[in-house]
Amino acid sequence: MTRQELVANIRKKQSFLCVGLDTDLKKVPEHLLGEDDPIFAFNKAIIDATAPYCVAYKPNLAFYEAFGVKGLMAFEKTVKYLKQNYPDQFIIADAKRGDIGNTSQMYARTFFGEYNVDALTVAPYMGEDSVTPFILPPSVSPEGEGKKNHWVILLALTSNKGSFDFQLMEDKDGERLFEKVIRKSREWGNDENMMYVVGATRGEMFRDIRKVAPNAFLLVPGVGAQGGSLEEVCKYGMIEDCGLLVNSSRAIIYADKTENFAQVAAEKAKEMAEQMAKLINSK
Amino acid sequence: MTRQELVANIRKKQSFLCVGLDTDLKKVPEHLLGEDDPIFAFNKAIIDATAPYCVAYKPNLAFYEAFGVKGLMAFEKTVKYLKQNYPDQFIIADAKRGDIGNTSQMYARTFFGEYNVDALTVAPYMGEDSVTPFILPPSVSPEGEGKKNHWVILLALTSNKGSFDFQLMEDKDGERLFEKVIRKSREWGNDENMMYVVGATRGEMFRDIRKVAPNAFLLVPGVGAQGGSLEEVCKYGMIEDCGLLVNSSRAIIYADKTENFAQVAAEKAKEMAEQMAKLINSK
Repeated sequence: MTRQELVANIRKKQSFLCVGLDTDLKKVPEHLLGEDDPIFAFNKAIIDATAPYCVAYKPNLAFYEAFGVKGLMAFEKTVKYLKQNYPDQFIIADAKRGDIGNTSQMYARTFFGEYNVDALTVAPYMGEDSVTPFILPPSVSPEGEGKKNHWVILLALTSNKGSFDFQLMEDKDGERLFEKVIRKSREWGNDENMMYVVGATRGEMFRDIRKVAPNAFLLVPGVGAQGGSLEEVCKYGMIEDCGLLVNSSRAIIYADKTENFAQVAAEKAKEMAEQMAKLINSK
Repeated sequence: MTRQELVANIRKKQSFLCVGLDTDLKKVPEHLLGEDDPIFAFNKAIIDATAPYCVAYKPNLAFYEAFGVKGLMAFEKTVKYLKQNYPDQFIIADAKRGDIGNTSQMYARTFFGEYNVDALTVAPYMGEDSVTPFILPPSVSPEGEGKKNHWVILLALTSNKGSFDFQLMEDKDGERLFEKVIRKSREWGNDENMMYVVGATRGEMFRDIRKVAPNAFLLVPGVGAQGGSLEEVCKYGMIEDCGLLVNSSRAIIYADKTENFAQVAAEKAKEMAEQMAKLINSK
């Protein structure tokens, strides 16, 4: 999906919500456990209920891998279901991959070639040759010539406590690691194929992020269960074409654990989308 | 596997070789492609041929994931085959995972609980809470109380060109990122459950690594196809109980592409083991 298509969808829906599909069998409502594929059954119900209020879905691979072959089949079915029924949704495989060139190339084939997602989260620690295989031009992409472009979503400033350990490290010129990651990676990709993960938990940091990446899209976890503020994020991070995808996982998909779970998830997503519409219009 | 067991095996075999199982269907000898599971058939032949000369195997998950469900089944079968037939081999899942706490917990369950490997490579960018779920004490590990311990192998200084991008970043006190990663992570784990990835491509750096991690085991890629020198690595990196696992993947497993591939792989592994025996004995 191109940036233009993503932005058109944000404008149409007045929402920049991404729903995180961190589907854990231990948290799925009991009545689904008898289904052939309870993970997919849960995802399908959540997607059908929340799709009007969001523009992206982000399955986290850890949750699918934990259930081995069955989990991966559920992941694959979920991506296919989205592609077939909701082709305007942006699909992010949250896998935080990154390895030496020939290995990253294998991961790129898997996620963009086999699973056909729009974007993959990537860890920057190993540098350029671990990242660029994911942003090959369409002509040499695993999908072959002329196919739609893919996105790398590079970890910059994450929302967890451990983000303080290394990401804020400062060099002697005062540049912090997350800033260096963004600045350097802009030599490898551009605003049409590279986004950054920036946690919502420190809203004022978006001002610093916008200095190095004034026009990049940012994927923002940490609103909801992790305590970040949507208003702060938008105040400092929103740009003319929005430039934000705000993710919520647990606060939406596990808001209710009864047979009513999908409807409650829809209500939660709708609430967030309504807040987002106000914030878009106040800009 | 404990450090004591690993070291006993290194002493017995006079080798600290780790064979990387980066099994790519595109490089597997043609006569295997008719097998039910050519990836596993290739691995089994390589393992049977090389096991006398090595103490560890390191399947790289990217290569298995690239073949979807079939690839993962081949990975699982490979680990089981090793456990059953070569229980003294140390099994490293090279997956370079790392995510927020609840997600890393899921990955830990997958690799240590489901697949039952001895060690997992982990990327440090997200800090403490992304790493510690992998080094839970046995009593709360996914395998339950009293089970054997697991290892985290944290990326420190990798062997690829991109390692220059961020890993060598210096703070105002002159501490580099890879040193900070090692120093900080030693508050989370210890020499019995945490190793570090240090590439062989810059041998003299092992001196600096040994200043921060004098007694840690190091997993060393980059000898062979990537051009690192075994002598340099040992000169600066070897400690009393060896403290090194040197990996070779392509130079062993793809040394020959005929029906003779396993025998040639064994010869290559034997050559490396003989070099290693000399280096162990000259210390």
